[in-house]
Amino acid sequence: MKAFVYRGPGKKALEECPRPEIAAPTDAIVKIAKTTICGTDLHILKGDVPTCQPGRILGHEGVGIVDKVGPAVTMFKPGDRVLISCVSACGKCIYCRKQMFSHCTTGGWILGNSIDGTQAEFVRTPHADTSLYPIPEGADEEALVMLSDILPTGFECGVLNGKVQPGSTVAIIGAGPVGLAALLTAQFFSPAEIIVIDLDDNRLEMAKRFGATTAINSADGNAVETVMKMTAKCGVDTAIEAVGIPATFEMCEQIVAPGGTIANIGVHGKQVALHLERLWDRNISITTRLVDTVTIPMLFKTVGSDKIDPKLLITHHFKLDKILEAYEAFGNAAKTKALKVIIEA
Amino acid sequence: MKAFVYRGPGKKALEECPRPEIAAPTDAIVKIAKTTICGTDLHILKGDVPTCQPGRILGHEGVGIVDKVGPAVTMFKPGDRVLISCVSACGKCIYCRKQMFSHCTTGGWILGNSIDGTQAEFVRTPHADTSLYPIPEGADEEALVMLSDILPTGFECGVLNGKVQPGSTVAIIGAGPVGLAALLTAQFFSPAEIIVIDLDDNRLEMAKRFGATTAINSADGNAVETVMKMTAKCGVDTAIEAVGIPATFEMCEQIVAPGGTIANIGVHGKQVALHLERLWDRNISITTRLVDTVTIPMLFKTVGSDKIDPKLLITHHFKLDKILEAYEAFGNAAKTKALKVIIEA
Amino acid sequence: MKAFVYRGPGKKALEECPRPEIAAPTDAIVKIAKTTICGTDLHILKGDVPTCQPGRILGHEGVGIVDKVGPAVTMFKPGDRVLISCVSACGKCIYCRKQMFSHCTTGGWILGNSIDGTQAEFVRTPHADTSLYPIPEGADEEALVMLSDILPTGFECGVLNGKVQPGSTVAIIGAGPVGLAALLTAQFFSPAEIIVIDLDDNRLEMAKRFGATTAINSADGNAVETVMKMTAKCGVDTAIEAVGIPATFEMCEQIVAPGGTIANIGVHGKQVALHLERLWDRNISITTRLVDTVTIPMLFKTVGSDKIDPKLLITHHFKLDKILEAYEAFGNAAKTKALKVIIEA
Amino acid sequence: MKAFVYRGPGKKALEECPRPEIAAPTDAIVKIAKTTICGTDLHILKGDVPTCQPGRILGHEGVGIVDKVGPAVTMFKPGDRVLISCVSACGKCIYCRKQMFSHCTTGGWILGNSIDGTQAEFVRTPHADTSLYPIPEGADEEALVMLSDILPTGFECGVLNGKVQPGSTVAIIGAGPVGLAALLTAQFFSPAEIIVIDLDDNRLEMAKRFGATTAINSADGNAVETVMKMTAKCGVDTAIEAVGIPATFEMCEQIVAPGGTIANIGVHGKQVALHLERLWDRNISITTRLVDTVTIPMLFKTVGSDKIDPKLLITHHFKLDKILEAYEAFGNAAKTKALKVIIEA
Repeated sequence: MKAFVYRGPGKKALEECPRPEIAAPTDAIVKIAKTTICGTDLHILKGDVPTCQPGRILGHEGVGIVDKVGPAVTMFKPGDRVLISCVSACGKCIYCRKQMFSHCTTGGWILGNSIDGTQAEFVRTPHADTSLYPIPEGADEEALVMLSDILPTGFECGVLNGKVQPGSTVAIIGAGPVGLAALLTAQFFSPAEIIVIDLDDNRLEMAKRFGATTAINSADGNAVETVMKMTAKCGVDTAIEAVGIPATFEMCEQIVAPGGTIANIGVHGKQVALHLERLWDRNISITTRLVDTVTIPMLFKTVGSDKIDPKLLITHHFKLDKILEAYEAFGNAAKTKALKVIIEA
Repeated sequence: MKAFVYRGPGKKALEECPRPEIAAPTDAIVKIAKTTICGTDLHILKGDVPTCQPGRILGHEGVGIVDKVGPAVTMFKPGDRVLISCVSACGKCIYCRKQMFSHCTTGGWILGNSIDGTQAEFVRTPHADTSLYPIPEGADEEALVMLSDILPTGFECGVLNGKVQPGSTVAIIGAGPVGLAALLTAQFFSPAEIIVIDLDDNRLEMAKRFGATTAINSADGNAVETVMKMTAKCGVDTAIEAVGIPATFEMCEQIVAPGGTIANIGVHGKQVALHLERLWDRNISITTRLVDTVTIPMLFKTVGSDKIDPKLLITHHFKLDKILEAYEAFGNAAKTKALKVIIEA
Repeated sequence: MKAFVYRGPGKKALEECPRPEIAAPTDAIVKIAKTTICGTDLHILKGDVPTCQPGRILGHEGVGIVDKVGPAVTMFKPGDRVLISCVSACGKCIYCRKQMFSHCTTGGWILGNSIDGTQAEFVRTPHADTSLYPIPEGADEEALVMLSDILPTGFECGVLNGKVQPGSTVAIIGAGPVGLAALLTAQFFSPAEIIVIDLDDNRLEMAKRFGATTAINSADGNAVETVMKMTAKCGVDTAIEAVGIPATFEMCEQIVAPGGTIANIGVHGKQVALHLERLWDRNISITTRLVDTVTIPMLFKTVGSDKIDPKLLITHHFKLDKILEAYEAFGNAAKTKALKVIIEA
Repeated sequence: MKAFVYRGPGKKALEECPRPEIAAPTDAIVKIAKTTICGTDLHILKGDVPTCQPGRILGHEGVGIVDKVGPAVTMFKPGDRVLISCVSACGKCIYCRKQMFSHCTTGGWILGNSIDGTQAEFVRTPHADTSLYPIPEGADEEALVMLSDILPTGFECGVLNGKVQPGSTVAIIGAGPVGLAALLTAQFFSPAEIIVIDLDDNRLEMAKRFGATTAINSADGNAVETVMKMTAKCGVDTAIEAVGIPATFEMCEQIVAPGGTIANIGVHGKQVALHLERLWDRNISITTRLVDTVTIPMLFKTVGSDKIDPKLLITHHFKLDKILEAYEAFGNAAKTKALKVIIEA
């Protein structure tokens, strides 16, 4: 089968690979219909993710059709259309029992990382019963690709951890795909204000179209001041960090209101300065989270009832044999205005 | 009347001062029966608290008898025995309505800070109806002095924010009075393990007597390793910071389990390094809080039913005219083994 | 001044009454701009509310301008435009401290019940600082009349108690004003399905316009069966009772899913049969609540940001001197299609 | 092997039966070390549980040693010492994913009900990975038998659902084994008062020994009055129903405080009268629940750290071949003072 393979820092190729086989009784083999590329895949290609070794087929998102199942799989059978969670969950370890699938002792984020992933014609999915989700008859599969990772990430790490409430004031720092996913899902809770801050006017424009009440370009260094002025010097109830660098996290520290929450989504490579000398008495919370995808069933219902349109996030389409072009478009988002790209296998 | 007055950095005196008068219709004047000294008072004496200016009568804790009330006070009358909250709350501003009394727009921590305090024969307490608490017939008033500040601080900022649960594993960094208050109140929730870490063997000894299941002297630099070994490398569900310096906060970052909480109580003077490069995907929460004292009614009930013995925290007694000796004892705790000192007015 | 007075069962009159005076230092006198009629007022007129004695001016909703304030009122001054909560709250009793304003020991629902109310040119509002809410510049006052009672009632008793969530399935039994208020505010949380059940096709038609995904006329006795069929025999996550009779409460018992909630809003005059022989092992919750109006500040923000349009509930307008006609219209809703009627003073 | 078999209403026998075999890849066979009898077993013997047909081996509690495992079992291997949950959970159906194991679509309470149970030398346990719990080295296995059903039932249905809190006032109606289990586990949260009400002085005496602050014999019909007097006419924060008849549930309705909770544990055979005409405006919650046993891991930790002594509930011991005597003792508790009886296989 064809598959997109990481060949070491800066090296990648669409290759012919053997089709995966059932390795454990709880495995399924899924024939991929549509997959996509995540920012994390770009990190891997740079060599920044040591758990992902050369030779690995990338990709941890996608929808497809069950091709084979192991003998212990009871929830799915060949022919079932399924969504693949970016996180594999055994459903029985100490973390899975606490709904922290991200920390599953034999799962977590392994697809396209420590085992072969979804940017291929077929993929082996471990713990299939608790890591795949049935796609209802008539559903728009392309929209559902957004439920593998990006929407639950924005929702769980940003919106739920950030305790977004009706009437509250939310700031989202970073209008990349995950920030926009937080923006879309924050609206489930009807906040009064959603302020989006970024450096890219095109993305800010999209943020406005997706429901931001205010879009601020922080290039002039006045974003904090603007937010404080807008909020009568109180700050925001929820500050969602969706970039992953010290400057944006510290911006969150500056704009969070007393009693508010900073919900971190960003993948950080360095420590940040936590200004406890100013925040120790401000009654704030800071949360971090790797997506658990426990809200996928809930998100299915919101998509099915048109409470959200995940396809807003999809900007480009490619066939699997053009996946190198897809990476090109996705990796040059400032120029191509790409958010999420769909790859059809 | 006699009162203990801050006279600028390093200067203090027991002085003769005019008795306070009702200034607003919601004020009460309370004749102090017993008060105490807080670590914050030592900070003021060093000149570290700019809101507190020379000439100020210190003290924000105590019990006494209502002497006079303003015309709008309806919950208390002269002769009532009352506990004074360290935090004054109007009960009607935006923060009070959210139970964040610490941020009351006309209150918060003002006693012995921006207005005269309780280390005196009489004190004016603003917002009396929502800042004083009736003392039940027959209660031990000395024990109740611990409910003005130290016990709600340990309980709200450490135990409640830290989400201590039956069977959970808790670490408390710092066995000073506030750390020990967290230790005492953590036991309301029956955690399986309470590990207390400090540098002072005497305080660790007290921690063991107060219910710590493990006491670790961190002087040898192995505390983190010890905790990780004790917890099968998982770390603790709740790490309570009760010191207020970067080293102890970072120790919390090292020992918190995936899914766990760092509850900060310490008053910090500097920024700390938040290692998001390691914590971004660990599903943790960090909380900060200035005590709101909203749990005083709950704490009254736990004291009345012998679920906690606040007098464990009391090590010394002085008369008001010996308050300089009381400060001497409290300020040299390593030598005097002082925790909380009772001052009788 | 003119006022609408209850004169005993079946008797009522628009009368000339003395203007109210400040009676306690925490009182305000409010000049009414707009008020409305509640279903409870009809109960009073029938003689069903023993706490309300003949001679009482009715009404517990409205907006107006502060005319006078007592000496302890600090949040308002004459000339301020305010919303009047249907529930008076002292802000300091044991219930107010728990945010249960409905049970305030010197307040609760007293306006137009045990003290004179708002269907008059002026009203005395006790505990003004914690029972009035400032109206922002430029706000639509007519819409805000809906925040005195009907919207917080639907939201607090139905939606919040019912734990409505994104993607969940909600049934509302009763499409009168309070059921429709629950319908409007349920949408803050983006449930997937909102099924409204009533006997009146006109009200069901309105429910559809207000956002119901399904409207069921229960006249044929098949409503339960229809709901169970729609939900794959699971039932609904939240069943909101907004009628107040045994038949509708028992319908909720029949359609609530395992793990679901029955949130009662209805004012009941009789006991109902709770089928514990069928429900004891179904992991359900049942809640009751008299509105606390603690969400008025939150609701203000949702109105200000166009997350809800309270004016949808307003069907008729009258001048105060035509209030008997207003009662006529409101009391014959099946014929007049009245929901809420605005009365201008 | 020997096993205790239900032979139709009023009929039972200790019989020689074939040893169970692995039937599904997720099954385990457990060699029973110790089991016990539940009140539900008595109901079955009367013919009151239609899902349990004649020929069934009874019993849904116990500890033992894993004898065999199916090929998909990964958490256990032969020789492991395990606790058996009374509820079998697949860990992957819609209910298991919500932690409602009681409603597992292929599990729930099936042991000793719709499949053969634990009152035998061996038992087949379905969904072994998510229905068995490893017993730590050195643990007291007899104490742990109480974690199969009785303690999680009291804790989940009574204490957690009842939201018991530090300082709160709790009433438990019924001092049978499950009421006493609620009493023991309520103390995890340090309530100020635990009032236990029963008709049997012996059980009330035990309740006092187990930590009840007040024991009331309700035979004289004054229990409600006594509770209301004790609580200054407020009532209790939490009323736990642990009997299962209308009279005791209605007693809960009479003593629950405004804002309080009625947590039902009792197995009810009839409807009860819910006095909404009095309760509709009291801001109460009523909960029902079949135990999910999701707290077994938490309970293990509380037992391991001596926060609770489950052996207090054990009054009698029998060998498996004397199980008819064990049923005799358990079924005549008023005379034998039996709570839980241990049966050694």
